[in-house]
This record gives sequence, C-alpha cells and structure tokens, in this order.
Amino acid sequence: MKLLLVNPNLTQAVTDAVLAAARSRAAPGTELVAVTGRFGPAVIGSRAENALAQHGVLDLVAQHAPGCDAVVLGVSLDTALWACRELLDIPVVGMTEAGLLCGATVATRIGLLTNGARMGPLYRELVQSYDLGERLAGVETLTLTPQQMVGAPQEAQQAVLEAVLAGARTLVERDGAEAVLLAGAAMASMADALQPRLPVPLLDGVGCAVALAQALVGLRLPRARVGSVSPTGGRAVQGVSPALTALFGRSA
Amino acid sequence: MKLLLVNPNLTQAVTDAVLAAARSRAAPGTELVAVTGRFGPAVIGSRAENALAQHGVLDLVAQHAPGCDAVVLGVSLDTALWACRELLDIPVVGMTEAGLLCGATVATRIGLLTNGARMGPLYRELVQSYDLGERLAGVETLTLTPQQMVGAPQEAQQAVLEAVLAGARTLVERDGAEAVLLAGAAMASMADALQPRLPVPLLDGVGCAVALAQALVGLRLPRARVGSVSPTGGRAVQGVSPALTALFGRSA
Amino acid sequence: MKLLLVNPNLTQAVTDAVLAAARSRAAPGTELVAVTGRFGPAVIGSRAENALAQHGVLDLVAQHAPGCDAVVLGVSLDTALWACRELLDIPVVGMTEAGLLCGATVATRIGLLTNGARMGPLYRELVQSYDLGERLAGVETLTLTPQQMVGAPQEAQQAVLEAVLAGARTLVERDGAEAVLLAGAAMASMADALQPRLPVPLLDGVGCAVALAQALVGLRLPRARVGSVSPTGGRAVQGVSPALTALFGRSA
Amino acid sequence: MKLLLVNPNLTQAVTDAVLAAARSRAAPGTELVAVTGRFGPAVIGSRAENALAQHGVLDLVAQHAPGCDAVVLGVSLDTALWACRELLDIPVVGMTEAGLLCGATVATRIGLLTNGARMGPLYRELVQSYDLGERLAGVETLTLTPQQMVGAPQEAQQAVLEAVLAGARTLVERDGAEAVLLAGAAMASMADALQPRLPVPLLDGVGCAVALAQALVGLRLPRARVGSVSPTGGRAVQGVSPALTALFGRSA
Amino acid sequence: MKLLLVNPNLTQAVTDAVLAAARSRAAPGTELVAVTGRFGPAVIGSRAENALAQHGVLDLVAQHAPGCDAVVLGVSLDTALWACRELLDIPVVGMTEAGLLCGATVATRIGLLTNGARMGPLYRELVQSYDLGERLAGVETLTLTPQQMVGAPQEAQQAVLEAVLAGARTLVERDGAEAVLLAGAAMASMADALQPRLPVPLLDGVGCAVALAQALVGLRLPRARVGSVSPTGGRAVQGVSPALTALFGRSA
Amino acid sequence: MKLLLVNPNLTQAVTDAVLAAARSRAAPGTELVAVTGRFGPAVIGSRAENALAQHGVLDLVAQHAPGCDAVVLGVSLDTALWACRELLDIPVVGMTEAGLLCGATVATRIGLLTNGARMGPLYRELVQSYDLGERLAGVETLTLTPQQMVGAPQEAQQAVLEAVLAGARTLVERDGAEAVLLAGAAMASMADALQPRLPVPLLDGVGCAVALAQALVGLRLPRARVGSVSPTGGRAVQGVSPALTALFGRSA
Repeated sequence: MKLLLVNPNLTQAVTDAVLAAARSRAAPGTELVAVTGRFGPAVIGSRAENALAQHGVLDLVAQHAPGCDAVVLGVSLDTALWACRELLDIPVVGMTEAGLLCGATVATRIGLLTNGARMGPLYRELVQSYDLGERLAGVETLTLTPQQMVGAPQEAQQAVLEAVLAGARTLVERDGAEAVLLAGAAMASMADALQPRLPVPLLDGVGCAVALAQALVGLRLPRARVGSVSPTGGRAVQGVSPALTALFGRSA
Repeated sequence: MKLLLVNPNLTQAVTDAVLAAARSRAAPGTELVAVTGRFGPAVIGSRAENALAQHGVLDLVAQHAPGCDAVVLGVSLDTALWACRELLDIPVVGMTEAGLLCGATVATRIGLLTNGARMGPLYRELVQSYDLGERLAGVETLTLTPQQMVGAPQEAQQAVLEAVLAGARTLVERDGAEAVLLAGAAMASMADALQPRLPVPLLDGVGCAVALAQALVGLRLPRARVGSVSPTGGRAVQGVSPALTALFGRSA
Repeated sequence: MKLLLVNPNLTQAVTDAVLAAARSRAAPGTELVAVTGRFGPAVIGSRAENALAQHGVLDLVAQHAPGCDAVVLGVSLDTALWACRELLDIPVVGMTEAGLLCGATVATRIGLLTNGARMGPLYRELVQSYDLGERLAGVETLTLTPQQMVGAPQEAQQAVLEAVLAGARTLVERDGAEAVLLAGAAMASMADALQPRLPVPLLDGVGCAVALAQALVGLRLPRARVGSVSPTGGRAVQGVSPALTALFGRSA
Repeated sequence: MKLLLVNPNLTQAVTDAVLAAARSRAAPGTELVAVTGRFGPAVIGSRAENALAQHGVLDLVAQHAPGCDAVVLGVSLDTALWACRELLDIPVVGMTEAGLLCGATVATRIGLLTNGARMGPLYRELVQSYDLGERLAGVETLTLTPQQMVGAPQEAQQAVLEAVLAGARTLVERDGAEAVLLAGAAMASMADALQPRLPVPLLDGVGCAVALAQALVGLRLPRARVGSVSPTGGRAVQGVSPALTALFGRSA
Repeated sequence: MKLLLVNPNLTQAVTDAVLAAARSRAAPGTELVAVTGRFGPAVIGSRAENALAQHGVLDLVAQHAPGCDAVVLGVSLDTALWACRELLDIPVVGMTEAGLLCGATVATRIGLLTNGARMGPLYRELVQSYDLGERLAGVETLTLTPQQMVGAPQEAQQAVLEAVLAGARTLVERDGAEAVLLAGAAMASMADALQPRLPVPLLDGVGCAVALAQALVGLRLPRARVGSVSPTGGRAVQGVSPALTALFGRSA
Repeated sequence: MKLLLVNPNLTQAVTDAVLAAARSRAAPGTELVAVTGRFGPAVIGSRAENALAQHGVLDLVAQHAPGCDAVVLGVSLDTALWACRELLDIPVVGMTEAGLLCGATVATRIGLLTNGARMGPLYRELVQSYDLGERLAGVETLTLTPQQMVGAPQEAQQAVLEAVLAGARTLVERDGAEAVLLAGAAMASMADALQPRLPVPLLDGVGCAVALAQALVGLRLPRARVGSVSPTGGRAVQGVSPALTALFGRSA
C-alpha cells in the first residue's frame, strides 16, 4: 500500500515530522511518500494562510496522488479535505478529522491542544464543520514560537514538551477531556514522548490518519456518483499547473 | 490478530451473517470468534429487548474477550458499547458507530436504513447519543418480517433485496444521503450484492467495525486512567455469571 | 393510588431513602411499594453497572408492577425508563427526568449535583437524551464515599451535608443555576434539610417523580398504538425470570 | 386548592372552554376561578396581539391571583409565563408548556396542532424558547375560522372535529409524532371526543396544566432568592391598574 | 430619511441617550424622532417589566410611526420587535439585534455586556430567540445602580466607565469575545469613550440599528404577503389607545 | 465611497451581473470597481473549485483593495471571506452572508435557492458556518446550465425566470420560507424582475452586501487587535503575486 502525505506549507521540517509520525503507525510494508508545498505560506497560522494553502494542496495531489492508494493531509486544519475527495478516486483523510474519529471510540469528549492564541477559533470552526462540536471538551492554545515547535535545539525541547504537557493536563482537569488531540504536525510528533505522563489517551492526528486511511483502503467503498462529493468531471480552470488543470478537466 | 464478534440476541443465523460479513473485510490472517447470547431476546426489536440485551453483551464479553485483541459488537444498536469500554482493556467498536465514523469520510450526510417501523426513533437516538445527528440525512424503515430478513428461501431473497434497495434509494433521493448505512446485522450482509445498483456507497456496519477495530489495535492507544471511561475497578455485583462477577471485581 | 418504587441496585438503605422521600411528597392515602434489585450491582457507579441494572429494573417491574397505578424509578440514571414504558400499561417516571421536568417550571436553567467524579458525563448524557441539555446550567460532582452517602453515623452526616451544600452553591454561583437537582437517591433525601440554606429551589428527584406520577395517573392518557413507545407484544425472550418472560410475551 | 385560570383575550367562550377542560381533570375539591381579559385582543392570532396580551395577563393576575394556590395560563402561547413567575409567589403553569412536559413522559416526539396558517412559526418559537425543539415532531396548522373554533352550531361541529382529527393524523403519519398536543384553548376541549379515533395520546394543554399545577403545589418548592426568576421587588410602573402597580411595587 | 427611535420605558434620560447615540451614526440629513413611553415601567429590569413594555412599544409606534421611513427600537431587549414588523409597513430594527448582525461581520463570536445580575439570562434568551446563540462568546453583567447608569454626576462617571471597561475586558479575556456589544441604552452611549482602551470593536446597538435601518430603507424590500410576518389585517382590540386600535384594525 | 466588487471566477459576464446589481442598490455617489479573477475556475460549481478560488480572491483584493472603503465578495459561496477580514483594514462583506443578515430582519426563516444539484450541501455548510442554520427554512436547487444562467438569448430568458420563480415558490410553500435568497451572482440579478410575482421578499445578495457594506463604513468599527480576526502581520508566503506577498508581509 502506498500512502501520500501532503504538507501544503513550505517548511520541510514539518513534512519530516509528518513522515516520521506516519512511519511509526503505518502497517508493515506500507510505502510512504511525503511532499511539501511549492508555493504559499511558510507556516499556516491564520485563515488567510489556510485559504491560500488550499490551492497548494490541490496542486500537490494533482501531481503526486496518481499511483497512490490513499492520501493523508499532513496539515492540522485539514486544508481542502472535501475538495480532494471530489477530485480523487482514492480515500483522503485529514489528520484532525482522523484524530477526532478515532478519538471518538475511546473518549466521550476530546480536548484539542494547538499552538497560537489566534488559532483556537479556527479549530473550533473545523470541528464544528464536521458536526463534532459536541464531542469537543475544549480547546487550549499555547504560545510557542515556530522555532520552538520545529527544530528547537535539544536543550530547549524539554521546555516545549513541558508546555505541551501542561496544556494537555489543563484540558483534562479544566474541561473534562477524556482524550487529547495534538493539533499541529509538529506537536503531534510529541505524542509518544508525553503519553506516559498523561492520564488520558494522546491522539496524534498523523498516526490516526494513517490508520484510518489504511482501514478505508481495506473497505473498498466506491465513489458516489451523485451528490456533493461525486466527481465533478470536465471542469475548466486556468492559470494553474498542468497537472491540476488536467485533474479538474478529466471526465467524471 | 484475534477479534471477538458479539451477537447478544439468541439467533444463530444472525451470528453467522455477522461472521460472514466480518470475514470479507478482515485483514488476512485475522482470527474471528463469533459468539451468540445465552439468554435474553430472540431478536432485538424494541428498547425493552435492547435493555435486556445489555446484560447479555456484558455476559458474553466477560467470558470471551480474554485473549482477544478487540471486540466488535455485531448488534446494530451497539448495545452496551460504552459499558464494554469501561470494563475491557482492548478496543471495542459498535457496528453502527463504525458505519457512521467510516461513512463520515466519504459522505457529508449519511442515510440510515433499518427494518421495523418502530425502530426508526431508536436509531435516531443512537446517532444523537454519538452527537452525530447532524450527519444523519434521514432514517428509513422497512417492514420486512424476521423470516424475510434471515433465512428466507432463495426465491424470496430477491424481493427482500429489492425492498432494501428501494429504501436506500429513498434515502438518496428524498433526503440527499451521500452514503447509506444498512443498520441490522442481516441487512448489512446484503451490501455487496446491492452496491452496484446504488449511486452512493453502501456502508456495512460489520465491515466498517472490523476495519476500524483493526486500525485501533494498530494505534495502541492506552486506556484512560481518569474520567468516565476509565476502569471502574473492584465493583461488586451479584447474581450474574462468575466471569462477569470477576470482570466487575478485578482491580483497576 | 398505589405507586411502585423501583431500586434496581442491591442496597436496601437506598430503597429506604427512596421510600422515605416518596412518603414525604405523596398525596394522602397513596400506597407506596418499594422494591430492591435481586441481582446486579450493589451500587450503580458506572455505565457498566447501569447497563447491567437494566435487566434488574425489567425483572422488578415484571414482578411488582401488576396492580400498581404507576411506577417511579428510584434510581437517578432513570435506568430502563423507556423500556418500561414500552412494556407497561401504566405511567412510568424517572426521578431525574421528573426533577428536570418539574424544575423547568421554576428555573430557566438547572444545575445537577451528584456524587462520583466519573458520573458527571453520564448525567450530561442522560439529560441530553431527554433533549434538555440547554436547560442544564452545569454539573457538579462530589467525591464522597458510598459509606458517607448512605448510613453515615450521625456525627459524620453534618460534614456530608456541608459538602452537598457547597456543591449546590457552586452550581448557583459559578453556573447560574436557578434550581439544583440532587441526583442520587441518597442525596435527594437531603433536600429538606438543606433547602433553607440555599437561595434557589432544591429538587429532590423522588419527590418530583411521585408528584408527576400522580399527575399522570390523573390525566388518564391512553397508550400509543403506533410508534416506538407502543406495546411490543408477543416477544420471545429466554433465560430470564418467568414474570419477565410473560411480560415480554403477552399480546399487544 | 384554588386554581386561577387566566384567559387574556376578550372572548368569554374561550374562557368557558378552558374552565370546562380544567374541571374534567382537576382533583376533587379543587376550586377553579376563570377570568377573562379586560382589554387587548379579541382573539390572539399574531405576535402583535400576543405582545399586547402580555399586559392583559399581568393585569389579570395582579387582580385575581391573591388567595389562589396556583395559576394556569389558559392561552396556548403561554403569554407572559415567566413574567408571572417573577411577580407571583405561587406556581404558574402555561398550557402549552404543560402539554409538552407531560407529553414528554409518554412520547419521544410530540406533534403540535393549531389553527391559523401564520401561527405555526409562533408555536415553533415557543417550543424552542423552552429548549424543547428537539422533542417536537412537527407542527401542523388548520385554517378554520374563529367561528368554527368557538361556538359553531352543532351540525357544523362534526366537520370541525374531522378537520382536527385529520391534522392530528398527519402529525402521526408524516412526522412520526408519538403524541399530539392540541394548541389552542378551543381545540384542546376536543381532546376527549377525538382520542378514541387517534392511535397516539392527545394532549389537552389545559388538563395537563391543571395536573401539573396541582403537582407543583404539592411539591412546595420555595421561590428563588437570586437569579432571573427571583422576585423583582419594589419596581415602579405607571399608567396601569392599581393592582398591577401594587404587584410591581411590593418589596421582594 | 426620517427615523423613529422608540424608548418604551418612562425615563427621558434614556431617550436622550438613545437620540445622542443615533445622531452620531445617522447619515447626514437624517431626521430623528425619539419618543418615550407613556405608561409602563420606569426602567426595564425584569421579564415582567419587559412584558408590560410590549404594550408601550405598540402604543408608541401606532402614534408616531406614520410618516417615518423606519423604526429603531431604543430598548436593548428589542421589546415587541417582531410584533412591530407584523403591524408596520416600514423596516423595524432592534438595537441588540442590530448589534449582533453588524457585529457578525467583524467578529466570529461576540460578548454581551449588560447591567443587572438578573438580566444575563434574559439576554441569552433574546440572542437564542434570534438563533444566534452560537455567535455569543458570553454574557457579563455589572451591578451598577440606575443612578450610576443614567445621570451620574461627572465625578462619578469615570468609575462607571472603568466598570464597563473591566466587564468588556472580561468578555475578551475569559470568553474569547472578538467584539463586545454594550446592551442597554445608557451603556451603549459609552462606546466611543471606551473604544480606544479595548482591543476589540465595541458595538453600540443604537448606532448599529440606525446604520442597519438606513441600509434596509435603501434595499426597498417589500412586505411578505404570506407567513407569520405578513400583515395581520383587520384585527379587533379593545381598551387601548385609538391609534393602536386603528393600527390593528386597518385592512391588510 | 468606493466599493470593490470581487468576482474570483473567470467569467466576465458574472462580474457584469454583479456590477449591475450593485449599482441598483448603491447610494448615490458610490464608486464601484468590479474585478474578475485572473486564474482559477471558469465557474465555481464544486468545493474543489471553491478551494482554488480562495487564492484568486486573495490575489484580487491584494491588488485592488488599496484605496477602497469596503469590499463586497461577488461570489455566492463568500469565498475567503474571513481570510480577507484578517488581511484587510476595511469592511468586507459576502453576498450570501449579507443576504442572510439583511433577510433576518424581515423573515424568521429564509429559503435559499441556487443552481446545481450538487451545490445544495455547500450552501447548507456555508449557512451553518455562520451559525445561522436555524434561520434556514430550506434549500432548493435548480438544474439550469451555465449557458441558461448567464447569457441566454432573450427568448430563452423567460423560461429561466419561470424556473427560478417556481423554485422560490417551492421554498415558500413546502418549507415555509418567509423570504427567499437567490444564491448565485447571475440568479441574484433576477430579483427585481421576479419580486412582483412572489409573495415574500426576494433577497439579492449583491444588493444586500452593498447596503450592508455601506452601513459598516458608516459605523467606523475599528479592527480587533487580538483574536482570530486581528491582523496577522508579517507573514511569509512564496510563489504568489507580489501584491499578495506584500499584503501578507506588511506589519500588523
């Protein structure tokens, strides 16, 4: 099985973190291909950057999805998730979506931890867009710098881990979270290290997405031929990459 | 990997249907153990029978879950699902829950088809208990007899299939369902036969539950040590089977 | 009028508390019959025990409801409430349900106080299952031992009362509760003692259930002949008490 | 026990219908006092008339509530219900509120039938204001004239009854209502005549309100001393009746 | 353009504050007419007073709306808003409604600040009656006296301003409000003075209502001829002012 | 006042329709600038095309918003609305958002009519993303071709108008819509022609957006300095237009 991991932002270190997290949960023999955005935001930290990154996600899947069995969006806002599902014939899973769906089998309510004070509302909106708002115990945001999140020197990493742990504990103690989802590709990679110190399951969205994508490949569900997720077929776009133009233009 | 399939009602033919559906979706090498209730309702067709069957589910998992890697509830009301999660240290998945969670990755709204006019509200309540009511396009109920559902002579099976197909199409056309979940162990087994004739994915809860259970085994999420799903530990019960008494009584 | 009070757990002291609370609110001349579970959990403190107790409730009403005018479930999770409504021809009222319905006439939002940290989510789920979640101001849980709740020596009772009062005040001050429902048969019996010290109405579920059951007897509403609450009629169950087998098996 | 029945519109025939319905459900020995508005709308058939009738309700309770044990609002929009609860020291119950609360013990979802095409949204809003919208199966409106509703000659009454029955059946068959609430004082009085011909309980709001008011009198819940329903105390109003001025002005 | 500003309570200082706030946001050349209630509550501080004030609002618009282009309700509970919309042929806007609708274009969630501890639930109910509850970040209430709110001597005004500012900041910091609506005619007039010291937009309901009313006048939307907001036409009322009797009585 | 009208798709005829609709509702003296996407989808008819168009909207506002007083998104999915609000210092209004907000002042529930069977769910999601789902009476979709919608020869236009009218009437009669929002830039331009034949207000999103944008300019609300809508400031993007790179990169 070949899985495509898509990171639409331009930071290779994030792609690396996604790939490492995916590898630790993929079934033996799974081939993993991780790709990084070619244009758009360096890091997604606002709705504006997320809006821009939607083009980036489409551009990446147009080029790299052919030949893969499933796609995992390695971006915690699940950017362009349903758009990809319209365009592609293979399962597509978002990392936050997957964390919520898998988490729903171990916890009645899930806390979501992310970085960046202004990001809290965006994750609330994302969870509500999945109609899963009632399963959300709460959202907690940290204020770490991008440098702290990705590529901190080893001596600084422990402080970052402690901050993440403290945030997760807040969700458990203040909000009654029965599991905690680490939203953010970099943060998700800390799950294994922190799990022993937290009394509830820590959900790593990448790992959940890989496991769920593999499950969906096994289910062999066909595509809908009607409805809002069915193939669009034969749509005209201009001024974008040839691969994306072709993907939009192919017949349904 | 060894999966326990639990059918709390007393009808062996339903257990057989669950086992067959599970086998068609389980990963190669998976060992499947399917067990049938020892007391309780012949068929679950009301809240009263479902209430009674909760004891039956607990009784079965107390006896058969040891040594298994995960449990799949092969009863479409997901009877005693969260109760099992409190008592057992392995993943437990309900077939309707799994159908909804897997279906959420291919459809924005899911239709649910079941048998028995009085059962519609029960499935609505079940879906709402998962806080997934907004993802439910609608519920359609058929009025087939138990004999038609399980063990119809071959010449009568086609009429049953047509009735199920008509119900599924109603969900697509009237309610805008983008996938249809066949709720009911017997009905779920018709998914493969009917899929080619329906324009949206047909979700077989057993298959989804097997796939999801396997994904969860791979994720190796620990149990919560706090909260409503954490092990109860050391609880006293009387007048039930020794295995169930022991399961309640073991320390957390 | 003859009311059946059902306590499905095995603790006689809880039955006694329910009976005492019922007596203080029943109309003059009401005959009260209080029964205790014959098998199942000593105390209900988890979903697993509540699942098991559903059988116990059905077993008790099958044996004792004949000849009564209404049933009050003296268990604060309202165990098997709608199942009983399917099986019986007389009004059935749950104590938490009744507390919420009566409370809705004196408070826009109600706080719910119960014992046991892990029980909070179960009561939230219960209230939401009644679609009354918006009327819930909040849930507060105490961490008293069963021994403290039932049968504490007199010198220890005052500390328990103070803890309950503090919890109720938290609901008023932190959550804006305009009434407080004491969930738990033992706790409900403290309402009269604490009311003078709380600035909002204290709802004793047993008292509310008795009052509401009597009101329903007076209304003489017929049973539905269609829909999910109508009599099931002629259902086969095995391996349970003769009375319960007969109750399931009688014609609609 | 003495109950005040308040009809804020100016139509004595409606008051008479409310009184008759109340009498058929009141406990033996209950004294019933029914009063009619002194100013305001002849009939309430719009939000504007309902807005005006709020003054009328307050005016009536200011004059007539003293000496009573509880108040029943005999107006199906439950006009000024919570306002009365702020002002009065005795239980106040609205007829539609009571129909919903009592109905919630016999039906998972309730249909509401009323007269006047433009009234449907008002009842939806009312039910939602009680946060009971999820229990509402649907709303059906008839288009009978006021003359048909109240005071039709005997030969015309049967046609009215048939129209009401047809509306109720629509709620059962189309919307899955498990009980039907007749909203409207005149319509409520038809419940006894129509019940034998409907397969689900018919809820007469006046009867439910009388039963619930009596239950609340028995519960002896104190008034809140804090919060939005607590006595306002010492409020200045001008240009209204002396009784109402006094009611607003009395100390808390 | 001529706008009618309606203050149904009897406090001229509130009318003056509404008029001043309106003037600062009205387009050049707008004629503003501000009227004060002739009977009813001195100040609206409870549901009972708000119920009474509905008559007052209707009385004022019956007399003063003729010849105006739009009506702004200068009362922060938007008293009788939809009733006015049924009766009048010109746009009617409530100040809290307008604050929420305009605020929805600058903030994902809005905090609401008002005065009077018991008023919090009333504003929650009002926002929910608009189905905008999900946009409400939270409600904060102050406990200033009417004297402090209106007509405080200059040396005391600063303390009032500081209290309002502190309340607004609580909504931002505790509840994540991205804008703050000052609910209450007197409080709204403090928006300009406080805005520089708050990091999110301060919404003055009167200003928003004036701007929105002017926008609606420009849109020239016709009245509905069917549905719950269409003209009632030819309704009989008694015992109220001739102007109001005529307004109810005119043909649709 | 200078308003920017943004059409991110590549069809000039749509831009022309938006401009015409805007002109008919803009205040005298308003300068209108209408711009068309430079890359992306010819027409937006799926989530995939809408995802791509987000880049297009950002690109257009980066180039054209400087010097304008407000932006109106002339695309009925309100593409990149909140992203623009983060990036720009002037009011930004979406046409469907504006139709809903203005419509909320004349109708309790609004029907939404659009073209393309697969588009219904997208508009539902959009309305729910504004937390206005409860105000939505229903969604109706037509199946007209793009050629019919834009640029039909005159003899064919009448058939299109009749189809739109029939769809609008369905929303009124089937769903109880009290106003109908024409979603789609081309469809919106038909509002004036159809209004006389529909018994409820027809909402043209462009006209509403222009009116609302002008109201917001008059309100002079400051930008938030904290929260998810505050300026991002100093963000790095690559591979996009210089204007957009500069817009992201400017300091907060």
